[in-house]
Amino acid sequence: MARVVVDVMLKPEILDPQGKAIAGALPRLGFEGVTSVRQGKRFELEVEGELTPERLAAVEEAARTLLSNPVIEDYVVHADSPLEAGA
Amino acid sequence: MARVVVDVMLKPEILDPQGKAIAGALPRLGFEGVTSVRQGKRFELEVEGELTPERLAAVEEAARTLLSNPVIEDYVVHADSPLEAGA
Repeated sequence: MARVVVDVMLKPEILDPQGKAIAGALPRLGFEGVTSVRQGKRFELEVEGELTPERLAAVEEAARTLLSNPVIEDYVVHADSPLEAGA
Repeated sequence: MARVVVDVMLKPEILDPQGKAIAGALPRLGFEGVTSVRQGKRFELEVEGELTPERLAAVEEAARTLLSNPVIEDYVVHADSPLEAGA
């Protein structure tokens, strides 16, 4: 079993109202020094067996066609270790 | 200017209906071999000046109290290079 992560973010030129709202709230909550916040999506895909180049290419294709909207979003696909809980 | 990324994912024991819906759609769209999908959030924060330990701790605190819900979500904070566009 291998894990592949797909990070999807709005393209820089696209307005990000959610990110702006968070950036606006941070100083009011005592968090200084953060000049901007952008919010996107993170997908963790468990893939059967070894992560072959073919399988990674299939995930790349799924990222491009299903997990992101290429008109307004950029995506990055990377094999990754599981998210170590920070909480 | 430094960039810090906060990845927020549902805790493993929490049901992820969005992830399940995507995992269900993938085979119908011709993507085989993906056994599970989990969807979370990715935040990119731009921080003024150098990323000092104090500033990283402040982002950690913001991740814990504002960007995630510690009851159902885990988070990881990491300094990161900008998302290289894959699209």
